[in-house]
Order: sequence, then structure tokens, then C-alpha cells
Amino acid sequence: MIYLDNNATTAVAPEVFEAMKPFLTELYSNPSSPYSFAMRAHRAIVEARERVAELVGARPDEIVFTSCGSESDSAGVWGPLHATGKKHVVTTAVEHPAVRNLVPVLKKRGYEVTVLGVDSEGMIDLDQLRGAIKDETAVVSIMAANNESGVLFPVEEAAQICKEKGALFHTDAVQAVGKLPFNLSASAIDMLSSSGHKLHAPKGVGFLYVKKGTPFAPFLIGGHQEEGRRAGTENVAGIVALGKAAELARAEMGQVERVRKLRDRLDKGIAEKIEDLRVNGGGSPRLPNTTNVSFAYVEGESILLLLDREGICASSGSACTTGSLEPSHVLQAMNVPPEYLHGSIRFSLSRYSTEEEIARVLEVVPGVIARLRELSPFTRGGGS
Amino acid sequence: MIYLDNNATTAVAPEVFEAMKPFLTELYSNPSSPYSFAMRAHRAIVEARERVAELVGARPDEIVFTSCGSESDSAGVWGPLHATGKKHVVTTAVEHPAVRNLVPVLKKRGYEVTVLGVDSEGMIDLDQLRGAIKDETAVVSIMAANNESGVLFPVEEAAQICKEKGALFHTDAVQAVGKLPFNLSASAIDMLSSSGHKLHAPKGVGFLYVKKGTPFAPFLIGGHQEEGRRAGTENVAGIVALGKAAELARAEMGQVERVRKLRDRLDKGIAEKIEDLRVNGGGSPRLPNTTNVSFAYVEGESILLLLDREGICASSGSACTTGSLEPSHVLQAMNVPPEYLHGSIRFSLSRYSTEEEIARVLEVVPGVIARLRELSPFTRGGGS
Repeated sequence: MIYLDNNATTAVAPEVFEAMKPFLTELYSNPSSPYSFAMRAHRAIVEARERVAELVGARPDEIVFTSCGSESDSAGVWGPLHATGKKHVVTTAVEHPAVRNLVPVLKKRGYEVTVLGVDSEGMIDLDQLRGAIKDETAVVSIMAANNESGVLFPVEEAAQICKEKGALFHTDAVQAVGKLPFNLSASAIDMLSSSGHKLHAPKGVGFLYVKKGTPFAPFLIGGHQEEGRRAGTENVAGIVALGKAAELARAEMGQVERVRKLRDRLDKGIAEKIEDLRVNGGGSPRLPNTTNVSFAYVEGESILLLLDREGICASSGSACTTGSLEPSHVLQAMNVPPEYLHGSIRFSLSRYSTEEEIARVLEVVPGVIARLRELSPFTRGGGS
Repeated sequence: MIYLDNNATTAVAPEVFEAMKPFLTELYSNPSSPYSFAMRAHRAIVEARERVAELVGARPDEIVFTSCGSESDSAGVWGPLHATGKKHVVTTAVEHPAVRNLVPVLKKRGYEVTVLGVDSEGMIDLDQLRGAIKDETAVVSIMAANNESGVLFPVEEAAQICKEKGALFHTDAVQAVGKLPFNLSASAIDMLSSSGHKLHAPKGVGFLYVKKGTPFAPFLIGGHQEEGRRAGTENVAGIVALGKAAELARAEMGQVERVRKLRDRLDKGIAEKIEDLRVNGGGSPRLPNTTNVSFAYVEGESILLLLDREGICASSGSACTTGSLEPSHVLQAMNVPPEYLHGSIRFSLSRYSTEEEIARVLEVVPGVIARLRELSPFTRGGGS
């Protein structure tokens, strides 16, 4: 199997599994319990928090463990609203559903939301952002890297603008953490969401960075855990896994350039071998592991099916919207022409991706596209 | 080690670990992904949902997987409020912090909350409940079993009253599921919260039962997962673990009577050997695995410390409030006399508890209490 859907989820690193295993077997205690048996779990969380903080250049007490990126996003948007009492939110048209689907709910609950568009390369306009922020703006939520296109937003500049204008800045960095370096201590970013399973930890754990001093109200209310910022018995094994994954991601940051070269080879190879395609967001800075290619006159779902038969896992967009017949909201916001809108494929690599895998994909994809175009009613070879 | 703190958390059953392991290693796919590799994860979730539904006598599509009991509780309270638009909540003074700490937040956000008290045996009054419900009542949230005292509330009768009066009924059954049988299909209960790590699954997974047709708005908004009722990439391994734990709990339900006998032996042995104690909630129906004993003139924390030295893990109350110097809100609500308020110990057993363990505890505890009473300034042997 060639797994090129790492933006949907990643393989759990073997070292991560080994690190979490004791906490799924003998070291099962509740880390808040008062006896010595609980100290191992307690200390393991302290250490994991340090490792995660190191990965993003934060203080350990700025890391709030959550159950997933979506929960982190909800906490990052609702937290400032409830803490400040302000009623206006700014976000973009291409956010992950975890932020995007908050928009109608926010409106229903009496909040005002400004949604910034993107250009045909998937990029936001910082002047538009500046113009959108007002006194009533509690929080601006702009993703660090788009999950579908891989386009990187200038979140540091955006955060700086927010700081100047007195709004808090949250970024959904679920796709960026572990793939790009962060130094949040030297950043104007107030809050940042991340998810373990995008960086070789398992599903079910994530974190929200909350800069010290940021007005914040917890999203999940209850027990005293996470210094009162997130209730619920700590997912000890998941947190330990995330700590180990963070440590590995930091140690393996040098792999990013190797991955970028593989991705570039994939882009180049596909463009050389296939006509009528566009690399969505290819004119913008992108995540080093991601490429989103639209092939005119074919359906993304059909491409995936044929790739699957060859043992290649890729995606037509977000796994969080799979099953929907609507074309991607990201590509729609980018005004991708209709003939390209339904034929997009996302390949997303990881540090486990190899040259051989990319070579094999480059062997398979042209045949798949050619075959589908032969069957397409929209091309000369079609059935009409 | 003798582990008698199973209301704080439980050991992961070895069968549960084995069941989840493949999903932390080779079967890492996102269950929503469109290729065949994802089918194993997808099917595993379908099966886990069936096992969990069977444990509580529900339909699989009434089970919404969450990250923990606290999240389930938040969803169970906020869900009906947002879905119905009504503004009144009824709950009790002895709920777990996951519900109790919602009360001030609800009030701050413009909701009205009625908090029912309990009598000296920790029991609620159903007539009081009936009187508290009004047209504006969206939801009544009453726990099935108290985490500290083990007292069982008559949730079926309470749910019936709510049904008659047109309010929705949610129960925090985190301590009850797996220890008591449920048949929700024949029940008036609309929503029920449960947590995996209280029934030998790991931390980081839980579920909310939502009866078909119940007005419900998701707490965690985002992707389409859980039929739009809970966003976030599914914690596949955790869900599989919960499914296996549910299957085991159902198969082992016969053990409940054995555990009850062990608990009764513990109660009896302690009462025979030690003076000036009270079994909190001992006059009410209780969870078969739990006893909460107050020893006059001693501090619970000191008892725990000495028990810990003997390798016995117990608790002075909820792990979710450990570190707080406040006496238990549960015992306060029960009007436990001051000399007993600080000296409470909770022993909570599991199906792994043995006769030998209980015999050992009965050997150790009398000496521990005697020693502490010798040191106590409040008793004759004290330092004054």
C-alpha cells in the first residue's frame, strides 16, 4: 500500500505506540489520584506537555490538551467570545469544517461573523483582514495551512494586525504543526490548534496553545484538569503519545525538505505526463507535503477508486466532508473553473513517504486519468 | 498493590488492549476515507457501536461517541438547551463537577437553574423534582449513581416525571454503566452519559446515548462524524476499546453480585472493628462496588497516605476535585456532621477485586485509623 493521505490521518509512529503502551496496560491510574501509583501518570503528562511546548516554542503551561483538533478549534473560537463578551468573529471561507461550521451557529446565537474570501490561488488578503476587524471583534480565526490545498496563510502577519487592532488571534494549525517550525513565544499568535493524529500520534488527542494572559473561558467545563481550561479525566496514553510524537516531529524536522522534494517531483511528473490539469494553490506558498491537482473532465471519486485498486491511498478533499456530493468549499472559494472542480485529488506525504512510492504513483496516475477521460462524456473519447 | 479506586478509573482489560492495538499500529486509517484501507476502521466503529448499544439496550444509531464522560455531560445539557431554545435547567446539588460546574456558567449565560438538594442519606425527593419542572424547562440532569457515595437515584421514575411534564431527561450514568443493567429502549430516559475508563476501557473515550427523536444540537461542531452529532476524527482505537469493554461488561454482569458481597464484607468488617464511623449513603440503594466511610476525628488525606504506604489505593472523594481543600460538596449536601466531614474514604471495587484484597484492607484499616486518632487533637489520645 502507498499511503498518500497524511492530511487525513497519519500512521502512528512505532516509537509513539511503545511510549503510550504502558499507560494502556499496567499504568492505568487516574493522574489526579492522591496515591503514589498515580505519580507515573501524572509525571508522564508533565513531560508530554514539555515536549509539545518545545515543538511549538511555547511554555508548558500554555499547552491545553484536548481530544482533537476540532475541539481545539471550538475552544479557540468560543473561549475568547465567552471571556471577552465581544460579539464579532472574523474568519475565512476556506477553514476546516471545525471552524467553518461554527459560522451559522455563531450567527444563530447572536454573534456577527465576517468571512474573508480567497483569491484564485487560495490566498487571503491582509488588507481585507485589517478592514474587517472592529472594536467588537473578539477573535480572528485563520488557519495556518489549508487542509485541502496546502496553501499557507501569513498567520504571523495576520496575528500582528490583530494585536495592533485589539482582537485576539486563533489559528487552526492542525495541518502545519510538525511540518513547519513554530516559535510561539516570539509570535503574536494568541491561540493555536493542533491534532495528534496529523503528526503520527493516534486519534483522540490534540492540544490548544493559549498564550499566557489571553482571555480564555473553557469550552469543556467540569473538573479541575488542565488548570481549569479543559475538564475530563486526562487521556493519559493519548497525551503521552502526543508528547512522543512532538519529540519525534522536532527531531525529524530536517525530513521536511526531503518530503518537499518528493512532492515537487510528484507535481512535476504529473504535469509532464498529463494535459489539462491545474495544481490548486500552486501559485501560493504551500505545505511541503501537500499537492492538490485537478484533472479536467474527470471525477475525483473515480480517480480515487482506480488508485485504490492499485493500492494507492489519496483523497479528493477533506475526510471530514467525505460522503458529501457538494464540490469542495475550498476549491469553490478559489473559483476553480467548473471543468476542474470535480476532478481534484489531494496527495499528502509524510516522512515515511519514499522515492519508490512517488515513482510508482507517477507510473499509475497518467493511465488512470487517460482511462477515465476515454470514458468521459465531456471529452472526445467519451460515450456521446 | 490493592486497587480500590475504580470510581476514579479502572484498569484497562487485557482483552480491550488487544482489541484496540491494531488500530494504534497497522490499521491507522481515517474511517471516513474513501479507499478500501479505511474499511477496517469504519467497520470496527460500526461493530463497537453495536456492542455499546447492546450494553445499555439501545439502538446503535442512538450512541454518539465522545471523548469522555464530561463531554457527554456537556452535550447532554447544552444539546437540549440549544435545540429547544428553552431557558430552564433542573439538576441536583451532588452532581459530578462535569454537570455541577455548568451551573454558574449557565446562569451567567442567561439560563435559569434549579438545584435540588438531597437528604442525609444522599437521596433526592421526586416530589421536589416534580415541583421544579415548568414549561420553560428544557432539560433535567440527574446522575444515575453518585461517584462519591455510590447512592443510586431513581432515574427511571425521574425520567417518567419529566416525560409527563414535557421536559427532556439526561442522566450522568458514568458510574452506573457496566455495573448495573440498563434497557434504554424501554426507558423514559432521553439522554445518558457514559465514560469508557470507568468500565475497563482506556481514558479518552465515552459516549452519549440520545434517544431517537430527541431534540439535540451538537456540542462539538465541525465535520460530519457521528451523523453530525459530534465532530472530530473518530478516536478509532478508543471506540474499539469501548466496544470491547462493553461486550465484556455485559458478559461479566454476573460478577456484580460477587463484587457486592465483597463490598458488604468490607462495610461489615470496618464497622465491627472501628468505632465512630458512618457509611455515607448507607441507608440508600447504592452502587454494588462502592462504599464511602467517614471516620470521625481524622483527615481523609492522612488515611489515604497511610493506606498508600501499605499499597492500598483508595480515594477521599472525586479525583476530579483532588487538590481542592474544600470538603466534598456531596457530603456537605448530605449534611454530614462536621467531625465526619473531613474523614471520608471511598473504596470502589471492580470485577478484578478479590477476597484476599478485602481481607488485607480489613487488616490494615483499623490500625491506620487507630494510629491517626492517637495523633488527633480532637480525641483523647491527641497531642493537646
